[in-house]
Amino acid sequence: MLSKTHTKYIQSLLHKKFRDESGLFIAEGPKVVMDLLAGRKFVCKELFAVEDWIQEQGSSVPKDAVITEVKDFELKKISSLSTAHSVLAVFEKRKPDPKIQTASKIVLALDTIQDPGNLGTIIRIADWFGVSDIVCSIGCADMYNSKVVQSTMGSLGRVNVIYTDLVEWLKKNKQTKIYSASLDGKDVSTVGKLKEGIIIIGNEANGISDEVINLVNEKITIPKRGEAESLNAAVATGIILSHLKS
Amino acid sequence: MLSKTHTKYIQSLLHKKFRDESGLFIAEGPKVVMDLLAGRKFVCKELFAVEDWIQEQGSSVPKDAVITEVKDFELKKISSLSTAHSVLAVFEKRKPDPKIQTASKIVLALDTIQDPGNLGTIIRIADWFGVSDIVCSIGCADMYNSKVVQSTMGSLGRVNVIYTDLVEWLKKNKQTKIYSASLDGKDVSTVGKLKEGIIIIGNEANGISDEVINLVNEKITIPKRGEAESLNAAVATGIILSHLKS
Repeated sequence: MLSKTHTKYIQSLLHKKFRDESGLFIAEGPKVVMDLLAGRKFVCKELFAVEDWIQEQGSSVPKDAVITEVKDFELKKISSLSTAHSVLAVFEKRKPDPKIQTASKIVLALDTIQDPGNLGTIIRIADWFGVSDIVCSIGCADMYNSKVVQSTMGSLGRVNVIYTDLVEWLKKNKQTKIYSASLDGKDVSTVGKLKEGIIIIGNEANGISDEVINLVNEKITIPKRGEAESLNAAVATGIILSHLKS
Repeated sequence: MLSKTHTKYIQSLLHKKFRDESGLFIAEGPKVVMDLLAGRKFVCKELFAVEDWIQEQGSSVPKDAVITEVKDFELKKISSLSTAHSVLAVFEKRKPDPKIQTASKIVLALDTIQDPGNLGTIIRIADWFGVSDIVCSIGCADMYNSKVVQSTMGSLGRVNVIYTDLVEWLKKNKQTKIYSASLDGKDVSTVGKLKEGIIIIGNEANGISDEVINLVNEKITIPKRGEAESLNAAVATGIILSHLKS
């Protein structure tokens, strides 16, 4: 049974302000919730699930997390998905590791990736290719936005994501070569595998900001053979990593 | 001013049944609407826009399309976007070209791609890489779903998309080599550019169905370096085309 207080509290976590204040976030659906529980990178505080889910999976929930059984219509009320799926869990955010080493590895840097689906998909792509760190500019979507969490498909705990002034961060790390995903530049298929590098992906509509592009050492492009104006930012990230990440 | 009849009619077009009956679909937002108008592949029947848009862009609307000026709150009522954007247009669907030649080119075949965002993004990717035809199994999302239209970002008119029994279609085209995006198979970076081929992308959760996989000549994989279980279907499509499409 779901109280009004509970409902309000869950709904408040859809807003960044309340996530920041409480240090909590929401994950939904059996796949994502089970992945985050199994990964043990985030502490589960509370869990709202239908009877069937609790019977089948209740034993995977840590003992100190409160489980509340809810009806489908109650879950629907607190869900941010178009179709609510069996379970919704409240986890504690974790502290990112602010000291990202850039030597001998590839680091992704995101300049104002605003679409939550894109950010989540990029985190999942990083996890697929074994990129362990993502540096987000302050203007990027919040990694704990429920749509981001959803589209990471469980990769959230396996990639270190920090938010910082991207220009300052790049200036501090200029001993590492900086690459950008651009509409002009060197054909991505001719660059070869990189031993190290910072790869910048720009905003969905406006690309990479002038201040950031000034710090770039090499522009990389995905040659266009047809007529589309651009590629989706997450798709471009996947293509670039598939060519450059060894 | 928007009548109740108008509102109901637009809302009905959010459902495939009514799109099929009427032969019409909806496109929203200045970018997508302007691209479809400029491409002249779809006949614009009717257009609902705010005053500013009509003043700036009204002259690009064909003369036989009816323009109705609406207020922001009215546009919000008929919009399927979380934020309504200046203009919503009703276009006529067009007849796809059912006879797809598979010789000397790459054709994409989608086996039950159900997420509208993924289908739209795949159409946009095909348009970027100059792939002119996509064969969809009957279980794929409808290309005229408004979320698909939105995520094609204007590429909708530049790619020929057909819906058919995929197994039958593949059997009829077995003179062309059939590749699949799979979790095991030949490393995509070692396949080289293809002169021709049918590339199959499978369902988001279940991959490629058994009946279809039995017809595949060569499985291709995107090597995993990290821990994510899978890649997003549209991202995988982009990666594969970036390696195989000349």
